[in-house]
Amino acid sequence: MKQSLLFVPTLKEAPKDAEVRSHKLMSRAGLVKQVAAGIYSYLPLGYRVIKKIENIIREELDKIGSSELLMPALQPRDLWEESGRWDKYGPELMRLTDRKDREFCLGPTHEEIITQVVRDYLNSYKKLPLALYQIQTKFRDEMRPRFGLMRGREFIMKDAYSFHETEAELDEWYKKFAQAYTTIFARCGLATRIVSSDVGQIGGNEADEFMVMSEVGEDTITYCMSCSYAANQEHSGLEEGDKCPVCGGTIKTAKGIEVGNIFKLGTKYSESMNAKVINKDGQQVPVVMGCYGIGISRTLMASVEQHSSDDGIVWPDEIAPFKVHLIPINYDNDVQKEVTDTLYQELIESGIEVLLDDRKERAGVKFKDADLIGLPFRVIIGKDASDGKVEFVDRKQGEKTVLPVAEVINNI
Amino acid sequence: MKQSLLFVPTLKEAPKDAEVRSHKLMSRAGLVKQVAAGIYSYLPLGYRVIKKIENIIREELDKIGSSELLMPALQPRDLWEESGRWDKYGPELMRLTDRKDREFCLGPTHEEIITQVVRDYLNSYKKLPLALYQIQTKFRDEMRPRFGLMRGREFIMKDAYSFHETEAELDEWYKKFAQAYTTIFARCGLATRIVSSDVGQIGGNEADEFMVMSEVGEDTITYCMSCSYAANQEHSGLEEGDKCPVCGGTIKTAKGIEVGNIFKLGTKYSESMNAKVINKDGQQVPVVMGCYGIGISRTLMASVEQHSSDDGIVWPDEIAPFKVHLIPINYDNDVQKEVTDTLYQELIESGIEVLLDDRKERAGVKFKDADLIGLPFRVIIGKDASDGKVEFVDRKQGEKTVLPVAEVINNI
Repeated sequence: MKQSLLFVPTLKEAPKDAEVRSHKLMSRAGLVKQVAAGIYSYLPLGYRVIKKIENIIREELDKIGSSELLMPALQPRDLWEESGRWDKYGPELMRLTDRKDREFCLGPTHEEIITQVVRDYLNSYKKLPLALYQIQTKFRDEMRPRFGLMRGREFIMKDAYSFHETEAELDEWYKKFAQAYTTIFARCGLATRIVSSDVGQIGGNEADEFMVMSEVGEDTITYCMSCSYAANQEHSGLEEGDKCPVCGGTIKTAKGIEVGNIFKLGTKYSESMNAKVINKDGQQVPVVMGCYGIGISRTLMASVEQHSSDDGIVWPDEIAPFKVHLIPINYDNDVQKEVTDTLYQELIESGIEVLLDDRKERAGVKFKDADLIGLPFRVIIGKDASDGKVEFVDRKQGEKTVLPVAEVINNI
Repeated sequence: MKQSLLFVPTLKEAPKDAEVRSHKLMSRAGLVKQVAAGIYSYLPLGYRVIKKIENIIREELDKIGSSELLMPALQPRDLWEESGRWDKYGPELMRLTDRKDREFCLGPTHEEIITQVVRDYLNSYKKLPLALYQIQTKFRDEMRPRFGLMRGREFIMKDAYSFHETEAELDEWYKKFAQAYTTIFARCGLATRIVSSDVGQIGGNEADEFMVMSEVGEDTITYCMSCSYAANQEHSGLEEGDKCPVCGGTIKTAKGIEVGNIFKLGTKYSESMNAKVINKDGQQVPVVMGCYGIGISRTLMASVEQHSSDDGIVWPDEIAPFKVHLIPINYDNDVQKEVTDTLYQELIESGIEVLLDDRKERAGVKFKDADLIGLPFRVIIGKDASDGKVEFVDRKQGEKTVLPVAEVINNI
């Protein structure tokens, strides 16, 4: 891809409201642009990363036998009346009326819709288990949108819903999802910790959150120094220094960014919305449900927060927007252009994603932007091009070497 | 993919409001399910097709040098005040207020947002041309939603916007997009005709539409029997039998489904919203813009309308949800199961998308569903499996042959 056509509006200064490093860098590197409080456009570079995260999620969820669908953002009031949430949900729920004065909300979550989607079809235990997911834009009217994509009002989520005959089967799938989540986040360059949590407005019997430990996290995690106990402080109510409720060890606290959550919903929605099956004993019973969320825009932000310095991002391999940044010092110079264009074609033909900085900018500007953008490998084509040599930089190692052009691809 | 996990809720009867064949079949084949008037969930089979159409669009637009981004659905009133459209746009524009009583609309189109996205960056002609696209959910509160995905209130669109120093450069890119569109629709199995049209609420100087000729189309196209003249009747005002304004030949009319449209916006938005560049002569001028839409959900529907009989769909190759339907007559039979499972693995390893009907249903039910779903190739594993033979059906040719299992893959 040629940078002149990609649209990467890098900035010298971060917006004034950007308090944390990831928010500053995502704005400065031209990944996102704010439209209104908590509402962003994902610019081409940022959206490439979003699509990579989405595809990792698809791969891992397809593996466990979950299928993708897409439900609407507009949800009619009558379905939320059935579940009893229309009156209970607070001002975070964005509501509107259509031209015929019928009421709708913009979905912050899809328990009602998924139950409407499956309930006519699910008549027998033979149709279970079933696990469906979607990747979709969600809406939540946060009182105080902040930290860029961390707490937005319009954001991208993966939400999944599973349906079962028994609690035991739900437990099995709950574990499958938890394992898939750990893999997904690891592939996005994030180490996560599973912590017990409250069920909140989703409801149900049990819930866990996937946390990325980070100073800028908005959640406080309480965890035991001696055993594997870990819980959101909202859930545990523990302080520093308290005793672990499991083993009596010492509780510590740390800040975390919640990137995923999983809930055992039980029969909360299937009872109120009448999603029932005939079980193996010939009885009609409500299906047992689970639900599973991943904040995709937040995962992007958490990854930038963890993989960056003040100068720029250092992308984890699997979600880097491109693998290689080709930077000719002077693209108007015939030799440099020739070497650059040949290498660009070779990289494309080898299936390596490459960004070519073909802009008419000074080398200093190009380097500064390249630092911000932070692709895993950088190839600088300068005066040595006439000797068939280029500078090769491994962003993670920070190593610079001068290489013959022919050896570039082998080093990637 | 195993059909038991995919969620394909086929129906014996189409919903009562389904008037046209594509709407009936898409409901019966379990591709979509209505949530409210003009609002649908895309079920796994239908969403696979949507994703294929999206990827065809991505490939063809990336080729012409357009980059993908994603803008928000929530658009603040102040931007629509700048363009002057807040008051002009009718009740099709869905409006809402947030918890702080600030007004927003749900985007039916994104001229305001894209102009806000690029205007700070575009300071010089050196940054032009630029062409950005997104694939996104759009909202339009239609008075009479009908024909399923044909006229919905929440629908998936690709919209693109291009930015230029001069009208001549816009003309060039307008042609590039038009050529890409013809390729995109052809790959989706659709022959399209370009017709002149009104600019409507988008505005601008000139517009064309991409029409799929179809009896169920809502537009009337007037075209000349003698030359290449073709225009939407809303634009031409011509009747049957009228004389062609270009060559004097005879005008005929036909019905068409509008699947795409392209507009020369000129400087309508760049003037009102102050998106200016310094041109080659050192003068500050408003950028010249184009915009380009494709109705993705409507393309799906038009394709089903054209490629089907009353019994079911006959998918065009490139957008078929799977390539092969494997149907064991009795999956509980050891030999049939063995042959089926081996073939299933071989197809997966050969990179051929395969759907295995592993459901505990009678053969008649499976065949009826397979007809509805309409994958390009069908392999039936029955009694002949003990002799290493299976029945092979080419859906498009309608040919049935009995083949040795080893020859199946070569026939696909």
